[in-house]
Amino acid sequence: MKQSQPYLLTPGPLTTSDATKEAMLADWGSWDQDFNAITRDVCERLLAMANASDTHVCVPMQGSGSFSVEATLGTLVPKDGKVLVLINGAYGKRIAQSLEYIGRDYAVIDKGDYEPPRGDEVRLALAEDPAITHVAVVYCETSSGILNPIDEIAAVVAEAGKRLLIDAMSAFGALPVDAKTLPFEAVISAANKCIEGVPGFGYAIVRRDSLEQCKGRAHSLCLDLYEQWRYMEATGQWRFTPPTHVIVAFQQALNEHAQEGGCEGRLARYTRNRDQMVNGMRAMGFATLLEDQWLSPIITTFMSPTDPAFEFKTFYNLLKEKGLIIYPGKLTEAESFRVGCIGQLYEPQINALLEAVAQTLAQMNITLKAVA
Amino acid sequence: MKQSQPYLLTPGPLTTSDATKEAMLADWGSWDQDFNAITRDVCERLLAMANASDTHVCVPMQGSGSFSVEATLGTLVPKDGKVLVLINGAYGKRIAQSLEYIGRDYAVIDKGDYEPPRGDEVRLALAEDPAITHVAVVYCETSSGILNPIDEIAAVVAEAGKRLLIDAMSAFGALPVDAKTLPFEAVISAANKCIEGVPGFGYAIVRRDSLEQCKGRAHSLCLDLYEQWRYMEATGQWRFTPPTHVIVAFQQALNEHAQEGGCEGRLARYTRNRDQMVNGMRAMGFATLLEDQWLSPIITTFMSPTDPAFEFKTFYNLLKEKGLIIYPGKLTEAESFRVGCIGQLYEPQINALLEAVAQTLAQMNITLKAVA
Repeated sequence: MKQSQPYLLTPGPLTTSDATKEAMLADWGSWDQDFNAITRDVCERLLAMANASDTHVCVPMQGSGSFSVEATLGTLVPKDGKVLVLINGAYGKRIAQSLEYIGRDYAVIDKGDYEPPRGDEVRLALAEDPAITHVAVVYCETSSGILNPIDEIAAVVAEAGKRLLIDAMSAFGALPVDAKTLPFEAVISAANKCIEGVPGFGYAIVRRDSLEQCKGRAHSLCLDLYEQWRYMEATGQWRFTPPTHVIVAFQQALNEHAQEGGCEGRLARYTRNRDQMVNGMRAMGFATLLEDQWLSPIITTFMSPTDPAFEFKTFYNLLKEKGLIIYPGKLTEAESFRVGCIGQLYEPQINALLEAVAQTLAQMNITLKAVA
Repeated sequence: MKQSQPYLLTPGPLTTSDATKEAMLADWGSWDQDFNAITRDVCERLLAMANASDTHVCVPMQGSGSFSVEATLGTLVPKDGKVLVLINGAYGKRIAQSLEYIGRDYAVIDKGDYEPPRGDEVRLALAEDPAITHVAVVYCETSSGILNPIDEIAAVVAEAGKRLLIDAMSAFGALPVDAKTLPFEAVISAANKCIEGVPGFGYAIVRRDSLEQCKGRAHSLCLDLYEQWRYMEATGQWRFTPPTHVIVAFQQALNEHAQEGGCEGRLARYTRNRDQMVNGMRAMGFATLLEDQWLSPIITTFMSPTDPAFEFKTFYNLLKEKGLIIYPGKLTEAESFRVGCIGQLYEPQINALLEAVAQTLAQMNITLKAVA
């Protein structure tokens, strides 16, 4: 790799392959059929990845992943709908905040910084409030790195006859999403996550029969997922200027995803990365926030050492000097930091991280005791 | 140039320089201060370009230019405000449509396909409806390619004590925008226009004292220009994931813009492109939609030949085979097509276009009479 930049051990934007970036070395007419064919191919492959080609449609949306989440909420939830939002971190909170902005009613189950929402409490909440039409959940909540029990939640939502909206931002492309076994109304993700593209657009995989009912609902011209879909169906083009280079890069990223064995292959590598990283960090004396059962293969939260000599900014900068960028913590109660496993990271990069952390601790005069 | 793709003679996305595209060959952490410094630099240079550093702020926004327009409308126009929208094409109509979506009152002056809105009629409309708080106008309406009389309109709006919102999408960076002589509340543009970056974000240059009053107004979480600004001021970071590669490319595009002599240098080249193109096309027998006074140096509408052998799709494809992509027309009343002057186009590319058009007419067995 021509890697002169630091490696990004972050939840995305992440380190992409050279070929993915090199795909951006041409300019494309956004109206031209050659470009339209790329958009169509990308959408078809995302649908197939979710095993949803015959039930759902894929609608890409300009902007970050949050733009796709807001577009999905504003378009799919009717003005008199009500969403039960399952919260255990910043991204669950952002869903509630979006609903607040767009004027849709909602209730929350807020589990705090990192406890998983469970099926039983969702069942109870749905039974107590029949006005609820939709349930929204974050698949992998990158605030803590927790992997939420999505199958358990989906089963309860389906049993209650409600519609499930899954923010699968940092999960889709690695963690399982199968429309035939996981009943969902919409799954949302973005280019710069487990497919390993560069940032600039997101997408929603939405039940076709539901989306067909959504004309005139959206609160925003640009974020109207229904019109975005209809226009693309009718013309093959994006409704407004797409990030052409980013989309062409994403097609290359999809090629590499397939070459690695699709979601299974990718999940296997991310899991190896995580296990190697967590084992190595624990051996040095770092503790993870979560028990193994809830650790995602996407990003892991480590508790900051209690040694007063530990200061995150210094730790971050010393690692960056060694070519590795980690991520700050996002817990409200305790000092922590996060390290990602996704992107073009393999055994040598995780080894480099572990060596760099050991050197950095020595530079900072910090001695840890290995975690049992 | 390593130009294996066709040249884009379109209003953007356009043909960018190799160096601009090559700037995308690295991955950046969206949280990292090296990337934050690039964002800050880009915003400062855009403000300076508008001579607005001491009165305005620059707020970038993910998505296409229309996302920035909608964000500006939703954030700056109060819920009880009213916008007079000056319409002479698709982009004026889109402003009215955005206001419709977000529930802000508006009136329109609609001049049809290509007549310019004039100062006198704006003065009259403002005098007749004191509820109007803002006037919105498109600087260069790329539907027809008309250059609207922005100075005349701005003077009338200022005289009436109203606030002017300028959609300068395809104008900013080439046509004059000077906050010291052109009174405006906001000017909006996007990365992939006269600065010659790749598409993926837009930006609004907004009066600081006005934006400060806009907390809590926006209709959308993602398109809240006030919160986007406050977060960036407080942290140096984008509120949600930015299109990192696109922004780094834009910084390189700004370097090249400065090297070419800033807006003046760029306007000179685009004007040369347009004159060479229009003269050559007229010599072949094509007529422009507009009189010379209204022709922008951005994009020009040509009337389709009346010869029944002329069919746009064939014409387009034969030009594309020769490495040149033009743009379809957008008139409601007559058949037309458009050719852009912006992007990395110089005398050789305009020559190539004129030769390709001549060859294509011959291939299509079309004979035109030169326009007097």
